[in-house]
Amino acid sequence: MDTTRIETVMGQIKRRIAAHSLTPGSKLPSIRAQAKTSAVSISTVVEAYNRLVAEGAIVSHPGSGFYVANQTAPLALSEVGPKLDRAIDPFWVSRQSLEANEDAHKPGCGWLPPEWMPEASLRRGLRALSKAAGTSLAEYGSPLGLPPLRQLIARRMADKGIESSPDQIILTESGTQAIDLLCRFLIEPGDTVLVDDPCYFNFQALLRAHRVQIVSVPYTSVGPDIELFAATLIQHRPRLYITNSAVHNPTGATLSPVVAHRVLMLAEQHGLTIIEDDIFADFEHVAGPRLAAFDGLNRVIHIGSFSKTLSASARCGFIAAKTDWIEGLVDLKIATTFGGGRLAAELVLSVLGDSGYRKYLEALRTRLTRARFDVGARLREMGIEPVVEPQAGMFLWCRLPGPRDATEVARAALAEGIVLAPGNAFSPAQTAGDLMRFNVSQFSNPKVFALLHDALVLR
Amino acid sequence: MDTTRIETVMGQIKRRIAAHSLTPGSKLPSIRAQAKTSAVSISTVVEAYNRLVAEGAIVSHPGSGFYVANQTAPLALSEVGPKLDRAIDPFWVSRQSLEANEDAHKPGCGWLPPEWMPEASLRRGLRALSKAAGTSLAEYGSPLGLPPLRQLIARRMADKGIESSPDQIILTESGTQAIDLLCRFLIEPGDTVLVDDPCYFNFQALLRAHRVQIVSVPYTSVGPDIELFAATLIQHRPRLYITNSAVHNPTGATLSPVVAHRVLMLAEQHGLTIIEDDIFADFEHVAGPRLAAFDGLNRVIHIGSFSKTLSASARCGFIAAKTDWIEGLVDLKIATTFGGGRLAAELVLSVLGDSGYRKYLEALRTRLTRARFDVGARLREMGIEPVVEPQAGMFLWCRLPGPRDATEVARAALAEGIVLAPGNAFSPAQTAGDLMRFNVSQFSNPKVFALLHDALVLR
Repeated sequence: MDTTRIETVMGQIKRRIAAHSLTPGSKLPSIRAQAKTSAVSISTVVEAYNRLVAEGAIVSHPGSGFYVANQTAPLALSEVGPKLDRAIDPFWVSRQSLEANEDAHKPGCGWLPPEWMPEASLRRGLRALSKAAGTSLAEYGSPLGLPPLRQLIARRMADKGIESSPDQIILTESGTQAIDLLCRFLIEPGDTVLVDDPCYFNFQALLRAHRVQIVSVPYTSVGPDIELFAATLIQHRPRLYITNSAVHNPTGATLSPVVAHRVLMLAEQHGLTIIEDDIFADFEHVAGPRLAAFDGLNRVIHIGSFSKTLSASARCGFIAAKTDWIEGLVDLKIATTFGGGRLAAELVLSVLGDSGYRKYLEALRTRLTRARFDVGARLREMGIEPVVEPQAGMFLWCRLPGPRDATEVARAALAEGIVLAPGNAFSPAQTAGDLMRFNVSQFSNPKVFALLHDALVLR
Repeated sequence: MDTTRIETVMGQIKRRIAAHSLTPGSKLPSIRAQAKTSAVSISTVVEAYNRLVAEGAIVSHPGSGFYVANQTAPLALSEVGPKLDRAIDPFWVSRQSLEANEDAHKPGCGWLPPEWMPEASLRRGLRALSKAAGTSLAEYGSPLGLPPLRQLIARRMADKGIESSPDQIILTESGTQAIDLLCRFLIEPGDTVLVDDPCYFNFQALLRAHRVQIVSVPYTSVGPDIELFAATLIQHRPRLYITNSAVHNPTGATLSPVVAHRVLMLAEQHGLTIIEDDIFADFEHVAGPRLAAFDGLNRVIHIGSFSKTLSASARCGFIAAKTDWIEGLVDLKIATTFGGGRLAAELVLSVLGDSGYRKYLEALRTRLTRARFDVGARLREMGIEPVVEPQAGMFLWCRLPGPRDATEVARAALAEGIVLAPGNAFSPAQTAGDLMRFNVSQFSNPKVFALLHDALVLR
């Protein structure tokens, strides 16, 4: 038997345990399923699981399956296999995109190329900062974060119909950290949390780190399937729902007012809290409906960041929540990050106030609309069909031609130096095996189409 | 009865519940203890507790006491009292220091005044960044973080005798976030964690957010009391120990080689993992012993940041750990923060490489030695006696004259616009009622001594 393959499977399982994507006591994938995921034979997985039992990492319950051992020590990861073999788990796209070298093609990544970002405004902002007061350069931020930036965020939210006061806004290190802080505040290990299917893969990774149960509801072109949403609230009693209302990731869909209203009524009825992740807000030409606008920051918490259109290098996000929750959130923010990133907040404030930035955003929206049209047309020629027609943003959520496994295509593409985003990385219910998310801003080089074509032919 | 006082006590309890410093099911302080903490009458606390029972926030178990209700919904905090009345919990010093306006005097805070920080180097760094490549300005950092900064950190650690490769180093948003990430990786809710008594107050706040049991061992002028350390490992079987080896916070003590060796032998014997928080490293004239240097990053994880001597505004910290743990830590870092703060890392790299920065550090060390001497002499004149003679750093850990409660002195001082750091904020066992931490860099204005004198006389 191939020892390398056995060790690769062992490494995949150990990594998932170390990353808490498999928690102590939880059941491992069946041998058949793991063989499919790892693209190895059944007997390879049997041997890998047996060795993991011998090491004490997992235990066998005959007749029932294999389970993660209840040991609490971190597992040795020294035998992890090469990264190309990593299973398509919720970390797959993140790791491949973030680790790719700068020449790699990344139509699967979730951000714009640097040359599409507001470089000139950022350079002006940094020059201005180099002349700022010493406190701005060297001291901790205040617990809520830079007051003028919080005021500006409140005004920008008001433009989308969301009423808030700057004292209801807490700056965070990023949108991800905003959701993480809220999870710490709102949920306990073992709680159930609802997400969309498909949803941003890192919601799953983050929720697993919080050791909660994840349930999902299919997302349509106008929001969650409302009948299934209602049934899920009754059946699973989730405490929290995390979603994107505008420019939904990965579908690019926009929530309709009627679905928004029904979601909020059901939330009220079942005591559900909602985190509305609005990090793609600045891509919109015209603001669509926001749950937080209808709800008035009562059961809805609105979060955002500046990573997608301003800078992902200067980390800055925010939480807007009901006044009652701010004190507790600030204590948790101090406990887990101490002072906030004052310098990043000053830079964001400076760029948002730069007149060049507003012009940049207008040009960017037009550029993205054209790219969605052009790239969509090229993809259709290759038999790759967008399943939603987005109003804004960089994503096209597409069905691959014929009976093709998106995971296998993504693996083949990776070997050619191109990072794709296979559908099941986004699908908690694993219902997106023939779907893929494409980022239209990452197709400037025509070679990307050729490489994509090759990967499709190979599989 | 005074309604305001009742509401103040209710607010204090609610805030602690919201911040998880009182977790669901845990016992509230006795009525007598809470009356003392809140400086109100017994009957005020009785009424406050009864109202909290009526609200469902706590439950009464007659004959046993009051307990936090097991409800999981966040509590309404709308009736929280004015912040001046906040109980001296592990958040007290953080909140008062971070929220103080820029004119307030802060001899209790844990950082240097901005005019003591390397402003010129920071300005040069920002100007250089304004001319950097677009990727540096706008893109996410790689999962481990900026390679040349990790190389430089490995070299700086080597200067302290700690051998590591850059691939064993993960950049984080801050020292606090480094410890938070490690807690997520290493411990489970309900585990026991060991800290020093006294220790940095935010260790307690952070550990409470992780819902673990905290045990402590008295810290002497050369490290933890080794007999009690051994007894505690046997009795409580902690999984993790968090400490500062060099320039211990708050005492300023330095670990001796003999204690370091015994701590590591006991750790080996009892399977204890150690986080060595080295954020004050750059204050040292001569590097003292490091646990990570003796241990070779086996059971010791070494963390640091640049907040104390470079900038607390540009957030950047790091973890150095054994190779086996890096993959799992990186997955958790992505799940909870996605890309790291590339811009802050670029700025730190630029400043560390600035020749002006090395000169600044040398001058700073001399300035701090002089300030410890001068401020120490002035404090002694007031009967305030340092209990440790630090080799380096900004802290003097002092006993107040006569039978004085440091908490009451801190409260009186706060009303006069001066933030102090009362001993029990640092003491998990509440053994430091007559002690206080002073930051010698925050006494430039002679008025601080006069205000401190007034606060002592008032109490």
